[in-house]
Amino acid sequence: MGLPINRWYVVASTDEIGAEPLARQVCGKRVVLFRDADGDIVCLDDRCSHRGFPLSAGRVVDGQIQCNYHGLRFDNCGRCTWAPGQDRIPSRANIVAHTTAVQGPWVWLWVGDLTAPDPGLLPRFPWLDDPDWAVVHGMEPLAARYGLLVDNLLDLSHETFLHAGFIGTPEVAETPITTEVDEDAGVIRVSRHMEAAECPPFYSESTGLQSPIDRWQDIEYHAPGNYLLHIRVAPHGQDPADDDNGKAAYVKVLYGITPSTESTTLDFWAVCRNFAIDDDEVSAFMAKMNREVVLQDVEALDQLEVYLAEQEAAGVTPVEVSFKIDTGGLAGRRMVEAMS
Amino acid sequence: MGLPINRWYVVASTDEIGAEPLARQVCGKRVVLFRDADGDIVCLDDRCSHRGFPLSAGRVVDGQIQCNYHGLRFDNCGRCTWAPGQDRIPSRANIVAHTTAVQGPWVWLWVGDLTAPDPGLLPRFPWLDDPDWAVVHGMEPLAARYGLLVDNLLDLSHETFLHAGFIGTPEVAETPITTEVDEDAGVIRVSRHMEAAECPPFYSESTGLQSPIDRWQDIEYHAPGNYLLHIRVAPHGQDPADDDNGKAAYVKVLYGITPSTESTTLDFWAVCRNFAIDDDEVSAFMAKMNREVVLQDVEALDQLEVYLAEQEAAGVTPVEVSFKIDTGGLAGRRMVEAMS
Amino acid sequence: MGLPINRWYVVASTDEIGAEPLARQVCGKRVVLFRDADGDIVCLDDRCSHRGFPLSAGRVVDGQIQCNYHGLRFDNCGRCTWAPGQDRIPSRANIVAHTTAVQGPWVWLWVGDLTAPDPGLLPRFPWLDDPDWAVVHGMEPLAARYGLLVDNLLDLSHETFLHAGFIGTPEVAETPITTEVDEDAGVIRVSRHMEAAECPPFYSESTGLQSPIDRWQDIEYHAPGNYLLHIRVAPHGQDPADDDNGKAAYVKVLYGITPSTESTTLDFWAVCRNFAIDDDEVSAFMAKMNREVVLQDVEALDQLEVYLAEQEAAGVTPVEVSFKIDTGGLAGRRMVEAMS
Repeated sequence: MGLPINRWYVVASTDEIGAEPLARQVCGKRVVLFRDADGDIVCLDDRCSHRGFPLSAGRVVDGQIQCNYHGLRFDNCGRCTWAPGQDRIPSRANIVAHTTAVQGPWVWLWVGDLTAPDPGLLPRFPWLDDPDWAVVHGMEPLAARYGLLVDNLLDLSHETFLHAGFIGTPEVAETPITTEVDEDAGVIRVSRHMEAAECPPFYSESTGLQSPIDRWQDIEYHAPGNYLLHIRVAPHGQDPADDDNGKAAYVKVLYGITPSTESTTLDFWAVCRNFAIDDDEVSAFMAKMNREVVLQDVEALDQLEVYLAEQEAAGVTPVEVSFKIDTGGLAGRRMVEAMS
Repeated sequence: MGLPINRWYVVASTDEIGAEPLARQVCGKRVVLFRDADGDIVCLDDRCSHRGFPLSAGRVVDGQIQCNYHGLRFDNCGRCTWAPGQDRIPSRANIVAHTTAVQGPWVWLWVGDLTAPDPGLLPRFPWLDDPDWAVVHGMEPLAARYGLLVDNLLDLSHETFLHAGFIGTPEVAETPITTEVDEDAGVIRVSRHMEAAECPPFYSESTGLQSPIDRWQDIEYHAPGNYLLHIRVAPHGQDPADDDNGKAAYVKVLYGITPSTESTTLDFWAVCRNFAIDDDEVSAFMAKMNREVVLQDVEALDQLEVYLAEQEAAGVTPVEVSFKIDTGGLAGRRMVEAMS
Repeated sequence: MGLPINRWYVVASTDEIGAEPLARQVCGKRVVLFRDADGDIVCLDDRCSHRGFPLSAGRVVDGQIQCNYHGLRFDNCGRCTWAPGQDRIPSRANIVAHTTAVQGPWVWLWVGDLTAPDPGLLPRFPWLDDPDWAVVHGMEPLAARYGLLVDNLLDLSHETFLHAGFIGTPEVAETPITTEVDEDAGVIRVSRHMEAAECPPFYSESTGLQSPIDRWQDIEYHAPGNYLLHIRVAPHGQDPADDDNGKAAYVKVLYGITPSTESTTLDFWAVCRNFAIDDDEVSAFMAKMNREVVLQDVEALDQLEVYLAEQEAAGVTPVEVSFKIDTGGLAGRRMVEAMS
């Protein structure tokens, strides 16, 4: 099938990259991340040029990574600076350095043509480093192909069942949606505006709002890997024009959907809010609860992957029945396929 | 190789099917079992028609099964009765309902042509629901192809070695057998009548009989999946015509040999007895001991499967040497092959 | 790729072969080892001729191995001496007996043409049974192809990094080597003589020598599976001609590199010393420390195997860069390939 390359994918959060090398796999490519002597993030192929040993099993010495097998060292450009018994080191011992970009807590990796990282394709997630917003974030690995996570996030009707008691209420599955597909921009928008809805624990406990509320879910999916859910929760009937003075709360739930291999995925998530931004208890609550929600998805999608892989191994193409709610998901699949 | 279809296979025991859905795999087919509002057993494909999610990961609501992903519901005929955001549900959202049949504690599933379940092929195991007989039963999964269990059960000489101290005594391996193969009926009979034999713990502790005993083993194998071992144990020399007034004990050991996948098997077993039928201690003893015997088979056959699979992966056809004791087993393999 | 056959490989140590059967796999061949009634070592195919059950799951009865499934017995020549229900046992029920050779604690197995075990190919490791030398030994299984262990042992520059604090010091990676390749004899010699070097714990604690020392490493590799490291450690500047009267210590580190399957290896090691030969504390120290060193190799090579297998599965031929230190290793690969 192939995975979409010449794209940016979230590869790590900045706080994961410290004194020890960090191994990651993105679109099948194994990379190692560490910091050079200036504290800048370095991302190299995770394979020593000598005998192929994983550099991530080594250590960082003076801002260079040292292979733990025969001690070869590589600098922040991937240049080999030392090899045993060699005075002169041939340039073919150098390894590939990859381009990364940082936005708030997230580090994106350019995957594809090394000479042409395209800054225009980087997503704009300004809330990640806006002092007026508080951010909690995390990552969970999925033993499932990333397309299943795209499907999952483009059809939130599943919140009612899979995430009941967290973010799901009956209204999510019941309220009609609108879907817009912008093929040229590679963006899909799915919106669901719930009126006089039940306030689920995720919002009642963090904002203090009580049922009934008006709850808006406006999805923006930038294929293949960037996902943004604009949320507005407010007392039922409040005029959105009064939000600045009222009790409305805005939340941005961001996902970095990163294919690790053909059948595994890194599920990066961040929850940004514009209220109680200095309240550590609210931060801890939202981080814990969103992680539990993500883990519910992980469990479900991992199960689904087992079933799908089994059918593929048997040469069976599973038949699916699609409904109106699937319009966005199906459009997402088409976009991703065109990129792959 | 293929597995024999258009047959009934034991899929579960009735007491396994309750408030929670039960997942099973038979001949590679994944099904979910639950009870409808009347308490009747329902068996559906374990795959939601929408996105393929396992229904067995969901729950039973008002006698229907509800998918835990997007909440689709299916009734006892497999009809989809609810889907998110849909007023009208297309009939192609319905899923397959399978035919089952109950006999005592066992539930058989018809595997094959859905329109033609053949009641004539159902085994007759009357002791399973005869009030004059007591039944204990269980199931153990095997990580081995079902043919290995057929081999195992058709040559009981292995009791002497694998089941020593349980049901095996030296006489089992030493006593000659007679074998009858009825190709037309698809039945194999292997008989071994031991005279003045040692009474193994399984029978001495349950019946009170002391060595020496006369011990008969009369196997009836109905290919591919139904196996019946008629056992008579009696004081040595007792005239079988006097069994009704004497101390003879009759036991029927039944096996439902159910291929789960090409290389895994569900080993359903039941032990029926016509003595001490209200004695719970005897029931508990026989259940515990037979389970241990089954687990000894499981361990051995799982080991054998590893060896066989390894040779197959290497493209080697293992050479076997067969003896007189293998007549029944070899006939069983031929019958099964003709059905596959 | 194939593994080199018509060779001797270390299959076990004598103290592993006792009352219980021992299962081993060499070059993909599964064998079982036990002792006959005279205490002599027997090595048979680990597969009952009847139904293929692993004999190693059985037990030794009167110096014969008895299958735990149907009780077949095989003597020290592989002759089947008993089968259930058989008076006459056909000779085709016999199984293969393999030729072994013992030298000190190690048992070598001839793998290949059963009719032509070549004693001339047996390695000469006289220190293994010389009363003037003390021997400690062990075996660790590798989840890595044996060629990786050959690479590893022919380039000891890795000691500095992988075995720092045990046997590695900076001088090992820094000191130039000389390499001799004797294609006709199938022997590779790699030598490194370090002058005024740091004495690593492995030698300082066992010999009492203090830094600086002169430390010689003279490798002899007899492709494919026999490896010998001649070590001399002595106070810096001591004339080797005075070694007999001085404080020089000689150590022979032997490896039996045994391919188990295409991707797994048995790493037999022995450390022979000519000092403190009756000192159990020194023996315990050297055994413990060398095992830790071997486990460091195991961990590294197992990691490397994962990376290599992944690339092979993806159809990628990994590019390697070789240096002067790799001369011996590359020659070793060529020799092994010519034998495979």
